Amino acid sequence: MMRFSTLVRQPAAWMLPEGPHADIVISTRIRLARNLADRPFPGWAKKEERIASLNDLQPGVEGLADMADGFSADLTKLDPLQKQVLVERHLISREQAAKGPGSAAVINRAQNLSIMINEEDHLRMQAILPGFDLGRAYQMLDAVDTRLEATLPFAYHNEFGYLTACPTNLGTGLRASAMMHLPGLVLSEQINQVIHSANRIGLAVRGIYGEGTEALAHLFQVSNQNTLGEPEPEIISRLEKVIRQIIQREHDARQKLLQTNPTKVRDHLGRAYGVLRHAHTIETKEALNFLSMLRLGQDLALLNPGNRLLIDHLLVEIQPAHLQLAAKRKLSPEDRDTLRAELLRLHLRHLPEPESTPPTPPGETES
Amino acid sequence: MMRFSTLVRQPAAWMLPEGPHADIVISTRIRLARNLADRPFPGWAKKEERIASLNDLQPGVEGLADMADGFSADLTKLDPLQKQVLVERHLISREQAAKGPGSAAVINRAQNLSIMINEEDHLRMQAILPGFDLGRAYQMLDAVDTRLEATLPFAYHNEFGYLTACPTNLGTGLRASAMMHLPGLVLSEQINQVIHSANRIGLAVRGIYGEGTEALAHLFQVSNQNTLGEPEPEIISRLEKVIRQIIQREHDARQKLLQTNPTKVRDHLGRAYGVLRHAHTIETKEALNFLSMLRLGQDLALLNPGNRLLIDHLLVEIQPAHLQLAAKRKLSPEDRDTLRAELLRLHLRHLPEPESTPPTPPGETES
Repeated sequence: MMRFSTLVRQPAAWMLPEGPHADIVISTRIRLARNLADRPFPGWAKKEERIASLNDLQPGVEGLADMADGFSADLTKLDPLQKQVLVERHLISREQAAKGPGSAAVINRAQNLSIMINEEDHLRMQAILPGFDLGRAYQMLDAVDTRLEATLPFAYHNEFGYLTACPTNLGTGLRASAMMHLPGLVLSEQINQVIHSANRIGLAVRGIYGEGTEALAHLFQVSNQNTLGEPEPEIISRLEKVIRQIIQREHDARQKLLQTNPTKVRDHLGRAYGVLRHAHTIETKEALNFLSMLRLGQDLALLNPGNRLLIDHLLVEIQPAHLQLAAKRKLSPEDRDTLRAELLRLHLRHLPEPESTPPTPPGETES
Repeated sequence: MMRFSTLVRQPAAWMLPEGPHADIVISTRIRLARNLADRPFPGWAKKEERIASLNDLQPGVEGLADMADGFSADLTKLDPLQKQVLVERHLISREQAAKGPGSAAVINRAQNLSIMINEEDHLRMQAILPGFDLGRAYQMLDAVDTRLEATLPFAYHNEFGYLTACPTNLGTGLRASAMMHLPGLVLSEQINQVIHSANRIGLAVRGIYGEGTEALAHLFQVSNQNTLGEPEPEIISRLEKVIRQIIQREHDARQKLLQTNPTKVRDHLGRAYGVLRHAHTIETKEALNFLSMLRLGQDLALLNPGNRLLIDHLLVEIQPAHLQLAAKRKLSPEDRDTLRAELLRLHLRHLPEPESTPPTPPGETES
């Protein structure tokens, strides 16, 4: 299998600036929860029982064709920093990182498929792709699910569907989500309304880092709340429709901002660029927010878009565990802030300055 | 005489980065208050009496050799913006700008000598020079005083000395001051102690813009409080001694900051540079503070010092009246903030970026 150092040398697939609507949708994720019929759920299993479940599951998961040359490790074999790196890449959950003996993570080479063993459920499987690609993500994961189900006795109830440790996952065990970059809706103060509307039709909108309007980097996860009473394709198609609407609203908000308050947009962008290029100490929160502004600047053609890849990488690379991995040692928060600033200065030094004069607004011709 | 437009086209003498200790002392000012013996003080004179005093005084003041080809205007002949420009250049006081008929300002060509007629006293004369130059400023002003006294009957009491409208100016009528740039003492949190010590020996230390530790741009005016009971040279020599001590403390504070916390200094400088180079809207307060950091960066050789002239000019040019003068019209606060940012981007675009690696601290040799 693949070594941890090999895995982290490459970005996860979703960190690449690819896929449909990559300007607004950073990544799409499908997750399925499955449990063995003949083993207690991990939360109330004894250590020996968890290890027994792991032994039942790990060979089949590692043996999947998708996992060839992938990464696999018992959580006890990873140090806290390594686990935190996987969390920052969204390849394992924060909860899984805290688990002891009997838990494991299996990740494919492209880092777009990851399977946690003995998290809250016996199996938490996810496909995570760059851009807005719910259909393909579901297809990938459904194929994995089918292959595993051929050999593993999954707990299934004729009326309720798949049984899960927490009733909120009962039925399909499916959670579909998109990580969306919504600076337009935040800056134009429409985000609360969008969150509220989505909630009313059973969808959740949460800040990826931080909550509500305090969400850092203007990044939000939009996901389904219900897993029961609807077939999987219907859950996905309803979510897809709403995300398309949010994409459109975000597009409109950006164009409107640029037309009605270009100075505000250019000021936010300029200050973000200026500070990221020249600060000597910077906290994660500030760096995320400023990188988000550069991303917006690129989308609005106010900033050279050549380096989209760089910005999306940096959003992950400046986080605490990735920083310490790069430094090859544990760092104090102060040292992290200094190293983060250094990394940003180094990587952004060749990023061309924002345009100083406004571009022609769409629909108008130059005179 | 000189036109207003000619006057403002040139910087005032004190805005030039010249004179002794120009890195820490921006300007030195000596002011004398004098009154006619046979006219009521301006504050309780009727309009006709103020005009009569003005008629007594103006020809003599305009006729001084120092004022040849200078600027002279009744305050009623200047519009509010023009008066505000003179205030921002420290050539007339805020109080004088608010005066009506019977008040005038006479300013020499180099803008290092200005005489206000009918401010609080009949005559408020000042010499203002770049750098730390109390002796020369006093010499200049003393000569003017002597020449005027030869023809004008100044109110003088054998015991008290020169009589003034406010008793705090009684005696010599002399106020000597230095405008000092003290970022080292502010950032190392020593400024309050310096202010306190100076107060105890009868000197005042005040923020030029804003008060106390809230002083903007780290600019402070150090001046004598007492005008009575001491000959002029003694007042000046005592002030001079204290200012020399403050200069030394500021030097020490800067070096210590750079040695003990170079990251903090470089971070402040980098952020100031980044924002000034790239903001699209900026308030006076923020701009002053950031320009102050650039000035410090130049003194510490962290920033190319070639453009010292530019920074010192900008400290005045970004102020509201100067901005509106440049725009040739009255501007809303929002428009001023936009224009200020534009002016800063334009002027600082060729200022080389701050060094990214620390210079060798003084006293150490490179290995």
